Parts: sequence; C-alpha cells; structure tokens
Amino acid sequence: MEKTLIEVKYAITCNRNFDIIKNAAIAFENGKITYVGQIKNIPYSRSYFDNIILEEYGIAIPGLINCHTHAAMNLFRGACDDLPLKLWLEKKIWPLESKLTSEDLFYGNLSSFLEMLSSGTTTFVDFYYFNELIDALKVIPLRAVATIAFLDQVPDGEIYWRRFKELQKYFDMANSIGDELVKIALGPHAIYTCSKELLEKIMDVSEKHNLLVHMHVSETLDEVHFTKEKFGLTPIEYLDKIGILNEKMIAAHCVHLKDKDINILQKKKVNCVHNPSSNLKLADGVMPLSELLKAGINVCLGTDGAASSNSLNLFNEMRTAVLLQRGVNLDPKFPNAKDAFLMATANGARALGLDNHIGSIEENKKADIVIIDGKSPRLWPEYDIISNIVYSCTPADILFTIVNGKILYEKGKFPNIDIENIMGEFNKKALKLLNTIN
Amino acid sequence: MEKTLIEVKYAITCNRNFDIIKNAAIAFENGKITYVGQIKNIPYSRSYFDNIILEEYGIAIPGLINCHTHAAMNLFRGACDDLPLKLWLEKKIWPLESKLTSEDLFYGNLSSFLEMLSSGTTTFVDFYYFNELIDALKVIPLRAVATIAFLDQVPDGEIYWRRFKELQKYFDMANSIGDELVKIALGPHAIYTCSKELLEKIMDVSEKHNLLVHMHVSETLDEVHFTKEKFGLTPIEYLDKIGILNEKMIAAHCVHLKDKDINILQKKKVNCVHNPSSNLKLADGVMPLSELLKAGINVCLGTDGAASSNSLNLFNEMRTAVLLQRGVNLDPKFPNAKDAFLMATANGARALGLDNHIGSIEENKKADIVIIDGKSPRLWPEYDIISNIVYSCTPADILFTIVNGKILYEKGKFPNIDIENIMGEFNKKALKLLNTIN
Repeated sequence: MEKTLIEVKYAITCNRNFDIIKNAAIAFENGKITYVGQIKNIPYSRSYFDNIILEEYGIAIPGLINCHTHAAMNLFRGACDDLPLKLWLEKKIWPLESKLTSEDLFYGNLSSFLEMLSSGTTTFVDFYYFNELIDALKVIPLRAVATIAFLDQVPDGEIYWRRFKELQKYFDMANSIGDELVKIALGPHAIYTCSKELLEKIMDVSEKHNLLVHMHVSETLDEVHFTKEKFGLTPIEYLDKIGILNEKMIAAHCVHLKDKDINILQKKKVNCVHNPSSNLKLADGVMPLSELLKAGINVCLGTDGAASSNSLNLFNEMRTAVLLQRGVNLDPKFPNAKDAFLMATANGARALGLDNHIGSIEENKKADIVIIDGKSPRLWPEYDIISNIVYSCTPADILFTIVNGKILYEKGKFPNIDIENIMGEFNKKALKLLNTIN
Repeated sequence: MEKTLIEVKYAITCNRNFDIIKNAAIAFENGKITYVGQIKNIPYSRSYFDNIILEEYGIAIPGLINCHTHAAMNLFRGACDDLPLKLWLEKKIWPLESKLTSEDLFYGNLSSFLEMLSSGTTTFVDFYYFNELIDALKVIPLRAVATIAFLDQVPDGEIYWRRFKELQKYFDMANSIGDELVKIALGPHAIYTCSKELLEKIMDVSEKHNLLVHMHVSETLDEVHFTKEKFGLTPIEYLDKIGILNEKMIAAHCVHLKDKDINILQKKKVNCVHNPSSNLKLADGVMPLSELLKAGINVCLGTDGAASSNSLNLFNEMRTAVLLQRGVNLDPKFPNAKDAFLMATANGARALGLDNHIGSIEENKKADIVIIDGKSPRLWPEYDIISNIVYSCTPADILFTIVNGKILYEKGKFPNIDIENIMGEFNKKALKLLNTIN
C-alpha cells in the first residue's frame, strides 16, 4: 500500500496534551500513521514515499466523527421541513420509507457519503438500512458504525426479533468491507417503539458479543410524557432500570434531562450525542450540554439525517453547539471552541470505542486525516486556529479528506468516483419518491 | 461596459411573486439587468454578448445583503472569544482599537471583502472606520452602506461632533467610488455612548439630507438596565421619545424587546437587523424574531463583526435564525426557510432604501447576482431549492459572485485581485496588533 507524507503548516493532533505542531509532517502507510512531528525530524528520506502532499498553509486535523445520522435520508432533504417529530414521522417519513427501494437507499447513502467527505467527516454512525449501507460503503469506504435497527411496537414489529438469529449475517456483511472499517451497533429505535423485552434482549446480546448500542433517547417532550405515563419514570430512569445504560450506549439527543438523569448518565458512563441543528429545527428543545460537560459526561456530535437537519456538515454542529448553549445559558465563557472541536473528534472516537484508532493524529492510529486550507479568508489571522475552525471553517476550506490512508476527497473532486452518475441517479430516484407524497 | 448573459437551471428571482424560473437566462449590461426569463425567450442573439456564463446546474439568486458588520474587525477574529459584551469592549476591543493604523484597517477591510464575496454577499452595511472602508472599496468594489460613527459619551467624544461640519467630505468620499455603489448612514453607536443632544442632532441631519441612521439598539440586558435607570424607559421608548425611530432607522440587534417596544417598531416602520450568531456567542440573548415577523416588521440579517461572531458568512445567519427561533419557541413551523431567504435579500434591500435597485433579480435592477452550484451533494435532491440553500448551502457551493455586473468571485478565485499579498499583509498586521494585548 502507498506510503504517504503530508507536510503542513499546523497539525492539530488532538492528542492528550492537545499539541498543535507547527511545520508539521505526518507519515502513514497501510492506513496507519507512522510519524507525527516536525518536518525537520522526519525519520525517512523523501524518496521513501510514494505520495507527498505539500500544503504550505495547510492545517491537518483528525477526521471529524458524526455520531448520529441516517445517511440515506439525504433522499428526503427539504421534503419534511416544517413539522414536529411526531407528525414528521407519521405524515412524511414513514409513508416515504414504505416506498423505499434498495436502489433508492444505495444512492441515498452514496450521496450522503459525498456530502460528509466534502465537509471533513471520515467516520459516521448510521442508524437506518443496514444492507444498503454496506453496499454503498463498498463503493466509497468511509469508516462507519452500522446500526442494526430494532423496533417491535410497530406493525410487523416481530420481524425485527428475527434479526437476533441472523447476527452472524450482519457480522459477515460488516467484515466484507475489510480494513476493520465497519463496526456494528445494536439499535433499539426508541422507548416508544421498543418493548421492555426487546430492550432486555438487546442488553444481553450487547454484553455477549461486546456490541455498541445506539438509541434515540429523551429526544422530545412527547417521549418524556409517554415514558412517565407508562412507567412512572423518566426515559433515563426507565432505561437504567432495564440495565441497558453503560459505556457501550451511544444515546442520541438527550434533550430533556432532569438532574437525576444527568447523575445516572454520568455514573453509567453513557455517551451522549448532541444534534443541535436537528433538535432546533424539529423544535424538540435544547440539550443541557454545558451541564453534561461539567458533569464529565462524554458528549459527541451528530448531524442527524438530512430529513431533519437538512445538512450533514459537522462544522455547523460544532458552531451551533457552542453558540446555542451560550445564548440559552447567557454564559459567554462556556462551552468554548475547543470543547466543540473535541466533541467532533476525540469524544466521538471514545463514544464509538475507537479511541485507540481514531479521534487524534498520533503514531499507530489510523490515518483518518482532514487537511484544511489555512489561507482561506475565513481562517485568518492565524491567532486562534481552533476558534477559526469551529466558528468560521466551511466545506469550501477543506482540501483533503483521507480515510484509512486513502484520499477520498481532494480539492472539490472525489478521485475515482463517478459523482455525475451518482448524483444524477440519486436526484432522479429521490424526486420520484418525493412526488408520491405530494 | 461588457454585455453578459447568464444561463442557469433555476433563477430564484425574489420578485414580488417569488417566481422561480426554470431554464433561466439573465442578461445585463452597464451593471443593470436587461432580461430575466426563460432561455428560449431571450430577446437577443448570443453574438450580442461579450461574455456568456453557462452553468447547466447553476442556481442564480440575488446577492446576499449583510445589514450589520464591522468589516475591518476581521483583524480581531479569534482574539476576543469568551467574554460578555461589556468586558469584550473594555478589555479587548477598545485597547486594540486604540492601536489600529490606517493600514491595518485597509487590510482588515479587504480581508473581509474576500470573505463576504466568497460566501455570496454583494452588499454590506459597515459600522466602523469610514475613510479606510472607502480606500478598500476602491480596490474591491462591493456595494456598501458606509456609516459615519458618532459617540460622545466617551473620552475625546467631542471630536465626533465635528463630523457634522465635514459631511460634504464624507459625501465626496462615498461618491469617489462611483456607480452609486456606496450609500451613507449616520451611525450613533448606542444609547450608552451617545448623549440625547447627539441623537437629536443626528435625527435632524438625517432628515435634512435624507440619510439612513444605523445604530446598535437593545443589544444587551446591560443596555436595557442603563436606559431604564437613566431615563425610566426601555431603549425603544427612549429612542422613540427623541423621535429618531422611522423607516430610515436600521436598528442592529433588538434582542431585548417588550410588547410595547414591538408596537413602536412596527408603527414607526423601523428596520431591525437580526445577528443571531453574534447575540448567541456574546451571550446577549435571543431576538424575538418570530414576533417581529408576525408584527410585519421588516427584519433583515447581519453577521456583526468577526470579533464577535467570528464569521461573515450569511448562510450561517439564515440557518441559525430559523433554527434558533424554532428551538426557543418550540414551534417547528415558523419561521421557515423562505422567511430567512427573504431576510437576507429583499428585506435587506428594503432596510437600506435600495429596494428599487437590489434584493431581487428583475429587469432594471442592478446586476448583483450569485450563482450557486446546484449539483453540490449538499443541494440535492432538487425538491425544495430554497430549503436546500438556507439549511445546507455553504461557500463551497458558490460559483460566481457578481456585483454591479462585475464578476468579483469565480470558482475559488478573485479575478484581478492579488489575494496572496492581501492575506499575507493582513495576517502580519493582525498578529502584530493582537500580540500587543497578550
């Protein structure tokens, strides 16, 4: 496999010391980082490398990690805009989903991959259709957590129970991508769509196979009221009582939380995914992010699907997360840009149990690297680089997105990918689908 | 002057009917639009034109209008991040401003122009240093409202009074740019920095010369408390009592408003500028945008300066304006994407008294046009184009920014502008300045 050398003005390592290296070199081969340090100390001669990326004003950052999305929902972008979550599901999403074909999903996934790569995302957690996700990852190999969805409190809910018997099939599909790019999560959809028995079964299977669990948790007031009425508990208390809350849980949303809920999340080391744009757009409310961070809870970031937030751009989420919290709490000091940057990188890696592999630019980690154009008018002066990236960087400023040592995006282009064909097919299929509900 | 023809897939005219033309052509010469309609009906032969822009998937929109910024504050980006407005001014901004040179400001302005052009902004309202703004506009001619700042409740405040005697000098400077590109506003800074006498004088001069007035209004709770204590009135009541509130007033921020304030703003036809990112980042609070829109008040959008919001990207402000309001009011239906789009275009033009010239793509209006890349993965499917633009478009998707018929930005480049030199000088000067307050 190719040996690559990157030389940039700055590398934001996101290592434990949060070192920012000036005049930095990063070397990698076989998808793994072999050197991070100053250019002058590179332990190889230039001729050792097959490929040298030289960006005089470049800023290398760890690839961003999107911890909650429904990638193929790019098909629905703009079609479900002005509804609360319940109607959004019942009037738009479920009718649309009942008509989805595998081909629709395949192109929906590919379109979202292009969007994520061009905005610096290298890893994402998908909660949607497993098989078609794998098919699309065979074409464009991002790093992913693929969630096996479960919900039994719906018509035909029993079919999901069968999935427990087919786990090996899912493992095999994930492994078929190779390079350990795909990890599996069990995905109980939400409290209001999953029975207690289903959640208990998932907890058992997660324990037995050491699998992540990914779930929508405390997203809306409706959900809180539902749980309160049915069980006399908050959603967090209910899940805790079942025993499903632990460090393998990736809990998306966590908007409505009481102090006692925050205590539980902290004690059980639950990972919380903040999706500020989606929560705002659907008028769900605002996660108490500052309180969660102060409690030492691992909070990462997600875009949610394009049907709700309309964009898979994590720069939006970093920016919105900080600004929103300040405006709501009337506290201009916390959280800050670095908090948001960590949420989109190191915290995400930790939530996915991948902190030994991604989330920072360090030797022996995977080469998931994004190079930003430091000479963009949005990113100067070079006074506080982290602040500039979090508040002002846009996809226009992304030069390279590298996943597992492979350049998947380079200066507006996707090497070896027929984007015209993908986007054309995607658009055609999406419009056909969307026109069925007009 | 060049005769130009644009052919695109869609033109979002933003005219009174909000017509979206498919397979659209836009012709302009001498900076003025001569045809808007379907390609098949163009009343000229192709050979008539000197320049033809053909973008098969392009989407033409009116140039965006940034109704409140301090352009040269790009110099301070990232240096004043985690402070409330009062300390932000006293500890950072005022000490830095005391050291500013004309050259600093010149390059600060140019850097902001590059940032605005590359994110689709063609017109902006600047509230900062007049002379250096004009110098910079001579190099890169955006459309601008240049504000003559006034504040007398500060040390050396009397020097601002002299400006009333030098008005002709300001008019001449603005006219020196030509093409009616620059309009003048009188800028009383804020209630807490301007005496009653100064505000009254400004009202008189505005009336006499038919000049816009641009002011920071009801930005923080501190300001509300100050006005309440000193005058027993809300900021809006106080300004109304002075008589300065009318359709020539461009009131930036308007965060803290009582119902009676909203009534006054509506009755007096005041134009309000929403700066959601700045208000959030400085923890000022949230403008009651939905209420203002429902009251029929003309609300437009601003980025504020990069020292407070860190970015001059109006796409951020459109998106944030909608999301924030929904999350705070728990209303997923209002405002919507179209409301935000109008705020950044037609409403802005109206606030500036330029609605006969800009804010829409119509015959006889100025050719201030932005072409977006409709085949970006962020902007498909082509189901609801306005929604896609407001929620998902980024500077990466801007192909052309045209001001007064001149292409000032084209696919990542600024024709005839030495960006390397500008950004290099800008960065050097900014860092020198910022290092004085460390």
